[in-house]
Amino acid sequence: MEILISEARGRPGDDPIFTINSQANARRAAGERVVNASLGALLDDDGKLAVMDTVTGAFRSVPPERGAAYAPIAGDRAYLDAVIDDALGGSTLKDCAVAVATPGGTGALVNAVMNFLEPGQALYTSSYFWSPYKIIASHNLRRVATFPMFTADGKFNVEGFESGLVELLAKQGRALVILNFPCHNPTGYTLDEGEWEGVVAALGRCADKGPIALLVDLAYAHFGQQDRSLWARKLEPIASKVTILAAWTASKSFAQYGARVGALIAAVPDEAARTQVANAMSFSCRGSWSNCNHAGLLAITSLLTDADLARSTDQERDALVGLLNERVEAFNRAARAKGLRYPRYEGGFFVSVFTPDAKRTAEVAAEAGVFVVPMDGAVRIALCSVAEKDIDFLVEHVARGVEAAGGQAANAVGRVSGRAGV
Amino acid sequence: MEILISEARGRPGDDPIFTINSQANARRAAGERVVNASLGALLDDDGKLAVMDTVTGAFRSVPPERGAAYAPIAGDRAYLDAVIDDALGGSTLKDCAVAVATPGGTGALVNAVMNFLEPGQALYTSSYFWSPYKIIASHNLRRVATFPMFTADGKFNVEGFESGLVELLAKQGRALVILNFPCHNPTGYTLDEGEWEGVVAALGRCADKGPIALLVDLAYAHFGQQDRSLWARKLEPIASKVTILAAWTASKSFAQYGARVGALIAAVPDEAARTQVANAMSFSCRGSWSNCNHAGLLAITSLLTDADLARSTDQERDALVGLLNERVEAFNRAARAKGLRYPRYEGGFFVSVFTPDAKRTAEVAAEAGVFVVPMDGAVRIALCSVAEKDIDFLVEHVARGVEAAGGQAANAVGRVSGRAGV
Repeated sequence: MEILISEARGRPGDDPIFTINSQANARRAAGERVVNASLGALLDDDGKLAVMDTVTGAFRSVPPERGAAYAPIAGDRAYLDAVIDDALGGSTLKDCAVAVATPGGTGALVNAVMNFLEPGQALYTSSYFWSPYKIIASHNLRRVATFPMFTADGKFNVEGFESGLVELLAKQGRALVILNFPCHNPTGYTLDEGEWEGVVAALGRCADKGPIALLVDLAYAHFGQQDRSLWARKLEPIASKVTILAAWTASKSFAQYGARVGALIAAVPDEAARTQVANAMSFSCRGSWSNCNHAGLLAITSLLTDADLARSTDQERDALVGLLNERVEAFNRAARAKGLRYPRYEGGFFVSVFTPDAKRTAEVAAEAGVFVVPMDGAVRIALCSVAEKDIDFLVEHVARGVEAAGGQAANAVGRVSGRAGV
Repeated sequence: MEILISEARGRPGDDPIFTINSQANARRAAGERVVNASLGALLDDDGKLAVMDTVTGAFRSVPPERGAAYAPIAGDRAYLDAVIDDALGGSTLKDCAVAVATPGGTGALVNAVMNFLEPGQALYTSSYFWSPYKIIASHNLRRVATFPMFTADGKFNVEGFESGLVELLAKQGRALVILNFPCHNPTGYTLDEGEWEGVVAALGRCADKGPIALLVDLAYAHFGQQDRSLWARKLEPIASKVTILAAWTASKSFAQYGARVGALIAAVPDEAARTQVANAMSFSCRGSWSNCNHAGLLAITSLLTDADLARSTDQERDALVGLLNERVEAFNRAARAKGLRYPRYEGGFFVSVFTPDAKRTAEVAAEAGVFVVPMDGAVRIALCSVAEKDIDFLVEHVARGVEAAGGQAANAVGRVSGRAGV
């Protein structure tokens, strides 16, 4: 007799990215020079996880009996207010926002999928996407539909976004759109002002074809070069027609990946609908994990609301963003010199380099000790975990990998798609 | 247009138990004598959350850069080994067990529901049950089926358990059975050796009618009077026919409700099936919350594996169990003197007193400042949050509430059912 239900049989055992990471570590342990650009956590130039002292201090300062007690199902009011302010401050969306605490961005995505997509329906995102989107969808009996992310000249494909959305709405009558900007994982791309305007116009035109929720995955919000409120301000004109959601997480912006502190935020202008949405999101928390790491919620609340702590946190984060930006510049210099093809890259943990055969490219690079993650049409490079001094070496061997794969085809960009994990 | 999917509309806003708790706090703030027996957390006799110094110390001692890093999706190997040992040590089930870390017991239950029950099917539990079982089931498109928990003389209804299970298996072809012992929430009941033998025999007879997974919800495992390995040893003879699961949590046993540290454990004798189950459980983690509070996992691992820390933890926990047991004895004395009808109660956070009209009973008690939770056929009393000195007062007013409801009917026990929350 089958122990597991049909859906749960034959689940994969190994995460491909963690497998690559293990190979890299094994080669390094054997004494080789290894550049491990597989994992999405920000390491300092000595290869240690970059943490922020003020954040560590805030976690240590939570009164034990408060952290030990259950958090409210939806999260403490002060936490939710602070997170809404961090995500939507500077935009009027803030005035009609509700939120629930979630275990990281993953929990926020799960909560949105359970409330804004009927079973069997597909969430809608770019052809390159963070691979757990698909796991979250399929685990909860939903699916993923995509649009080709880039035009032939490597810009965001607003037209393809709209035509795919029209098609999906015709098919399923509602849509949950997920856009992960700024600093998209895996490509590193950030929508510029004009591209956001294009997206907003497209959403506005589609809004009468069925209920649309747009979830902006803010995982890397603090690592872009843009004004952090740009996207929210751009969305204001359609807020009465499209439900605007944000997946917020402390994982990257507070370098607390392990704490599982996140939130799903929803901007809902109508008051009755807002209450209904808040209740639904809270119900989903109870039915998924009950409540979140209370010490984590309390620590992050302090860091966001205490003026001194917030200032120190910003300074320490600025230092980390600066570290990362030096790597971004070094990469851009070296990659342009080698003629690599990759989307506009101005900051963030990842960048992706196009190649006609990603598997071959990754293999050739790995032979030289450079570990990157192959996807459909590109390899993902986690610059967040590569010291600046190693970037020339990395680019050189990625370039050799692209060449070995018959790369640099001018028309590769338009056809590419793919996804990547952590 | 409807923002939310049909399933998510009209979710309730207030948790009924938290509402009762708020009423109790408001009355106390107004200067009244209040005995608040609504919430399921262990308070000391001064009404403060009971925490354990060794546990607090272990959380403080986690190296910041380890706690800040992502935990593995399934949890650290050392954590899983330690938890399996805590749950199944003393039984051969341990030798074929796999596990994944989950956010508390809730996460473990969700993970089991997603892997061992097809959508549309009902999990199977006693008529009194922890109310989130129903939320977890319905949120994930499953349902709940129950058997009458007690016989007319107030014992566990083994016969009803078996006949209901036979019926359910005939209907849906597989079963996920959830039993929350020792110290069942909400009734406080603990199966004795003979009752476990009855359950095991029933499961053995049903096992050829379809795949059965038995999940033992161990939320209160450290608060019973029984040998902690009794249940697992009793289940050994059917382990090849029934998949044995355990929902483990640090919430109560380490007084770390807020940390969300738990695990789902599965004992699967066949090696290939075991791998498949481990992969499925891990996939569910990735698709639900990605990974768990890493500092919490590391702290609990230390507390379970470091001999000195384990000894101190056991001593501090023994003191808390002792505190609770004094309340249990005081309750039993007072309740017997008043002739209250309630199931055998030998320890644990809760006890339930039968009444023909629970709402009326709770109202009458609340008039006197005693706050308990009404269910179908009984009121739940959270002795975990009541000082010993208040127990006579509590029992007196619960007894008046039962009388006011026309209570003490000798045949009430056989007909009762119900459920309760946190």
